[in-house]
Amino acid sequence: MVKHHLMIGTWTPPGVIITVAFDDEKLTLELVKKTEIPQDEPISWMALDHQRKNIYGASMKKWSSHRIDSPSEIVHTGSFEIGGDPKAKDASTKTRAIFLLPARKPPYAVYCNPFYDHAGFGNIFSITPSGSLDKNIQNYEYCPQSAIHGMVFDPTETYLYSADMWANRIWCHKKIDDEGRVETVGFTEAPGAKDHPRWVECHPGGKFLYVLMEAGNRICEYVIEPKSKLPVYTERCWPLIPPDVPNPHMYRSDVVFLTQSSTTLFATSRANSFDLTGYIAAFSILPSGAVDRQICLNPTPTSGGHSNAVSPCPWSDEWLALTDDEKGGVEMYRWHKGFLARVARLEVGEKGFGMNAVWYD
Amino acid sequence: MVKHHLMIGTWTPPGVIITVAFDDEKLTLELVKKTEIPQDEPISWMALDHQRKNIYGASMKKWSSHRIDSPSEIVHTGSFEIGGDPKAKDASTKTRAIFLLPARKPPYAVYCNPFYDHAGFGNIFSITPSGSLDKNIQNYEYCPQSAIHGMVFDPTETYLYSADMWANRIWCHKKIDDEGRVETVGFTEAPGAKDHPRWVECHPGGKFLYVLMEAGNRICEYVIEPKSKLPVYTERCWPLIPPDVPNPHMYRSDVVFLTQSSTTLFATSRANSFDLTGYIAAFSILPSGAVDRQICLNPTPTSGGHSNAVSPCPWSDEWLALTDDEKGGVEMYRWHKGFLARVARLEVGEKGFGMNAVWYD
Amino acid sequence: MVKHHLMIGTWTPPGVIITVAFDDEKLTLELVKKTEIPQDEPISWMALDHQRKNIYGASMKKWSSHRIDSPSEIVHTGSFEIGGDPKAKDASTKTRAIFLLPARKPPYAVYCNPFYDHAGFGNIFSITPSGSLDKNIQNYEYCPQSAIHGMVFDPTETYLYSADMWANRIWCHKKIDDEGRVETVGFTEAPGAKDHPRWVECHPGGKFLYVLMEAGNRICEYVIEPKSKLPVYTERCWPLIPPDVPNPHMYRSDVVFLTQSSTTLFATSRANSFDLTGYIAAFSILPSGAVDRQICLNPTPTSGGHSNAVSPCPWSDEWLALTDDEKGGVEMYRWHKGFLARVARLEVGEKGFGMNAVWYD
Amino acid sequence: MVKHHLMIGTWTPPGVIITVAFDDEKLTLELVKKTEIPQDEPISWMALDHQRKNIYGASMKKWSSHRIDSPSEIVHTGSFEIGGDPKAKDASTKTRAIFLLPARKPPYAVYCNPFYDHAGFGNIFSITPSGSLDKNIQNYEYCPQSAIHGMVFDPTETYLYSADMWANRIWCHKKIDDEGRVETVGFTEAPGAKDHPRWVECHPGGKFLYVLMEAGNRICEYVIEPKSKLPVYTERCWPLIPPDVPNPHMYRSDVVFLTQSSTTLFATSRANSFDLTGYIAAFSILPSGAVDRQICLNPTPTSGGHSNAVSPCPWSDEWLALTDDEKGGVEMYRWHKGFLARVARLEVGEKGFGMNAVWYD
Repeated sequence: MVKHHLMIGTWTPPGVIITVAFDDEKLTLELVKKTEIPQDEPISWMALDHQRKNIYGASMKKWSSHRIDSPSEIVHTGSFEIGGDPKAKDASTKTRAIFLLPARKPPYAVYCNPFYDHAGFGNIFSITPSGSLDKNIQNYEYCPQSAIHGMVFDPTETYLYSADMWANRIWCHKKIDDEGRVETVGFTEAPGAKDHPRWVECHPGGKFLYVLMEAGNRICEYVIEPKSKLPVYTERCWPLIPPDVPNPHMYRSDVVFLTQSSTTLFATSRANSFDLTGYIAAFSILPSGAVDRQICLNPTPTSGGHSNAVSPCPWSDEWLALTDDEKGGVEMYRWHKGFLARVARLEVGEKGFGMNAVWYD
Repeated sequence: MVKHHLMIGTWTPPGVIITVAFDDEKLTLELVKKTEIPQDEPISWMALDHQRKNIYGASMKKWSSHRIDSPSEIVHTGSFEIGGDPKAKDASTKTRAIFLLPARKPPYAVYCNPFYDHAGFGNIFSITPSGSLDKNIQNYEYCPQSAIHGMVFDPTETYLYSADMWANRIWCHKKIDDEGRVETVGFTEAPGAKDHPRWVECHPGGKFLYVLMEAGNRICEYVIEPKSKLPVYTERCWPLIPPDVPNPHMYRSDVVFLTQSSTTLFATSRANSFDLTGYIAAFSILPSGAVDRQICLNPTPTSGGHSNAVSPCPWSDEWLALTDDEKGGVEMYRWHKGFLARVARLEVGEKGFGMNAVWYD
Repeated sequence: MVKHHLMIGTWTPPGVIITVAFDDEKLTLELVKKTEIPQDEPISWMALDHQRKNIYGASMKKWSSHRIDSPSEIVHTGSFEIGGDPKAKDASTKTRAIFLLPARKPPYAVYCNPFYDHAGFGNIFSITPSGSLDKNIQNYEYCPQSAIHGMVFDPTETYLYSADMWANRIWCHKKIDDEGRVETVGFTEAPGAKDHPRWVECHPGGKFLYVLMEAGNRICEYVIEPKSKLPVYTERCWPLIPPDVPNPHMYRSDVVFLTQSSTTLFATSRANSFDLTGYIAAFSILPSGAVDRQICLNPTPTSGGHSNAVSPCPWSDEWLALTDDEKGGVEMYRWHKGFLARVARLEVGEKGFGMNAVWYD
Repeated sequence: MVKHHLMIGTWTPPGVIITVAFDDEKLTLELVKKTEIPQDEPISWMALDHQRKNIYGASMKKWSSHRIDSPSEIVHTGSFEIGGDPKAKDASTKTRAIFLLPARKPPYAVYCNPFYDHAGFGNIFSITPSGSLDKNIQNYEYCPQSAIHGMVFDPTETYLYSADMWANRIWCHKKIDDEGRVETVGFTEAPGAKDHPRWVECHPGGKFLYVLMEAGNRICEYVIEPKSKLPVYTERCWPLIPPDVPNPHMYRSDVVFLTQSSTTLFATSRANSFDLTGYIAAFSILPSGAVDRQICLNPTPTSGGHSNAVSPCPWSDEWLALTDDEKGGVEMYRWHKGFLARVARLEVGEKGFGMNAVWYD
């Protein structure tokens, strides 16, 4: 493969999906297409289905789906209201669609998280045979204080872990039927009162969770207790901003992902001021899933703005995309022998660009 | 000390010295003063005398001196032609004043290196009691191919080591009289045919040199052979750009300095394209002077342009200034517990800004 | 302190307590006294009370106490039958007194473990004001398969953790009254079916247990789950014999102890053949209690025989005693800058010598 | 290969060569044969020729050769006086044959070092077609104070490096003719006045020497200066006994060897008292030949006595033989994943056993 296409969303109207191409030999990034989508449904977080044929989007007050006919032909296939709390879908409330997680196993339901107010319920959607969002089949419960910003399944897709920023805990839910509905197993409080778990990644061995703390600006390692399936903090954590900065509240950590081989974990932080930089950290991971050590904590070129989302290539540990909305940039890094090298950067003149990047091919 | 003043030069006419202030509590950088100096004598490399009362400048075709009455009162005190090869001073030749090293011991002579063509001689200047450049007292010999870009004394100021980019070697000269004249001891070839030594730092223990290779984009460790005083490569080197980049010729490494405690060594590289970034590397140094290990290789926010010069604070290991001329910026980093944090950045709208920064107070 | 006295038991009749002296300046070990005790009550494991005025002994079919009037004046003060299963005390059964743990907090009860058959109950003894064993106040339950070989309290002495070799699990019991009686909280299965937990140490921060697996020949790290207080395996373990030996069944790991500063953990293994050696491993421990790394895995001079028990000095991280019954030796090691140095060895010609050493002064 | 034969000498009369067999599957060491050799010529250091058909021995006042017809058939083929200083061969002097180094390249001359008094000359012997010592072809000069205990060739066998204990330096000699005669290049003083270089090993890359200091009880790393071929100390050293022992004079470091892959370096030390132990250290070596790090410093089972010589297997990094004359033992270690495991030990009841072991097959 030489040329890879990636799709990236924006967080402010009018909605648009940007397709870019990365040439992994020439080391170039170029704009391929701007696809208009419903104006009030810009996508602040997108994910591909298991076949990479459909994009699901967290689109302000809606959950949306879009069929990918080719990198430059993307067709809107549906939009659905936020479920759960009746006020969530109301135009007057602050509630927003923030995150969604498409299952990798049949029947490929899509698990969605509202955020801010009235966000105490996750929304599960079934899909049509072609992969469009079909029906809201369950609004499962968290708690009234909840505001979930990231979720991950265990490798068997039996247990679903949710990072709850506002209730400061990690939830565990369990699948209860063949359509993908879930029930609550329990939760584990974050170790710090102001940690604010924002993102969670699971090792494919099924024994470790890596929880990113937005306000704590750190990665905390959790081992999954084999009987209860609840995560237990191992008392091991690593910084996502330089230690002892005088202004830690000026930083908000962002996302955490494993590379495809699961030997490296990447996590990022953002700064609240354009005078500061965000950071990208890399960790080596042991075969068990335990963190071996922090390899680096490199500054990102900008503060990251509302984003600074890293997106490792699904087919190789070598490439990572990073998007920021301070300057509306997407850039590509090469990960090689424990060093990160920026090989290309593209600034797209689009308002609200760039939320996260997904790798299409 | 809360407020530190730093002076920074430009490399394109008209000449100006920029004074900035760094507040180490508020973590701010602000412009204090732009001092005009002779138009044709912009300073691409400046250094302070041992008392921090005078600036010596490598100023295109001249060596210049400037008295510092206060951070905002800087007075030009003299300019001298490049010595050695008669064509060096000629306006029609490419020869440029590139680097100078003021002695820290009496009689405080200033050792100067021309660059590019006709640069086979170092120029030594005596100074007046107040510290102005006084007379060219010797033009000591390198070789016709030489183009020296950096020098350092051993801790006793008996031996002078010079990084010769074009002749690809490290020279050793020895002081021969009380005025500071020198004679050639010998030289050591760089290990790689295209290493191009550009900068050299010496450990205060007097046993180690750290040589930065501009084209080799690496730091090479040298032990000083006790009898001959010539440097011997220890076969240990570390990268200043990510390993195995497909385009190493797009990078040129820049400078290398120890912190005041000599426990950390910083070195930088620049990129030839604004699409790439420069890098700053940190190394921990053992008490003997041997390199312990590379701690990091962080990207700089820009390519660095013609600069990317790091300047550690002379009174503390905590602060580092970095200047770039891609965007004309100066920024301040905090070095703490093995992590680098950018705490402030100032972009000065001055053409040719910013070459290296010197710490005045 | 220059001269330290240590007491050491034997495991075969006739019973005797050996007092030795270690001079930490001259680096000598010498025999001070052999105190005869009841012939059928040799002490295979001994412990001092909180005041270091009494020795409690696991003495074949009895629990014994001995008053220390001076290093060379030790007086037997009582012996008690094994409690719990009625067959345990029977002379015809294999049941043996194997381990005891004197509380460090009032009322200073002594917690005792029978081993081999009929060993499903722990025995708790109250003590007299002078510290002699007084009464069996409770025989608390494990399970019929249990054979406990080591126990440790959490720092508050509220929770008691027991390493159960034969039921292959770690138990947690909780104190339920002011006299020190306990009730079962629960247990955690060992990760390997043939791990056989033999010993357990607790970090003073109360968050970590280190469990030594006799048959697994490894140290497993456990974090204590804050709500349930049950240990959860962190999936991190380290070898107590060289990895991949073709004959792991020829080794049985022995004991694990923290140094007084809790910054280093020592653990030992024994070999079943005099042609092989035992091993002593050291680990650096982080302030949280998490294991930082394995520092070494040094052979011991002998197989260790039935023992190879390490006993760190209670007042300094510098000294470690090690006893073996292959040659009936006790030796002293210095732990300094991450290296272990044997500084003295004494071979005592006493049958069944030497079980563990306790530091008296 | 399952069964390996090794030959080992003794250092006290009557002379005998012991053949033992190591079974690398059963992990056993057994005595195969004791071959009597001339009574006054016990072999304190032996080496095999390049074909492994002949043993050369340092035999008190003689240099001897022995043909190996099979592991149990060894035939004495000649003995020669010590050359150089006329008093060296005299029965009344303390001079002893101490070390010899057979060349690996034609004409396969043997380089021999006398020791103690009158030891200022190295003796070079030619060999017969069948490999017996033939004639003393040169007695090349060191200095009157010299007492060489170990030598090594550079990989091209052009330069010969000698560790001179009494003159406290490393010599370099150069081959000057096709028969293997040498002339002095120069020497490098040891860094410590009481280092006493005893042994030297060379990396196959030809850039590094590892010098073992008998009294300094350390390994010092030297880089070979490319022009002069003299070794230059890199100011990097590692301990062969635990640091800061109160009695370093009670230890004498012994030998240093690379494994066949040159990725690991082993070095040993001996203790002067049977109450102490010797040590074996392992170091990882980078491809350049620079030392990466010290992996361990394990005690040996005995003091080592006059020996404690490690002998890595020439065909695999997995096996190491170690001989001691405290108990007359030879033992075999397995080196695997950075851990040393003793797998077999044989104590041979022979006076003066066991000097170094050579691997025959």
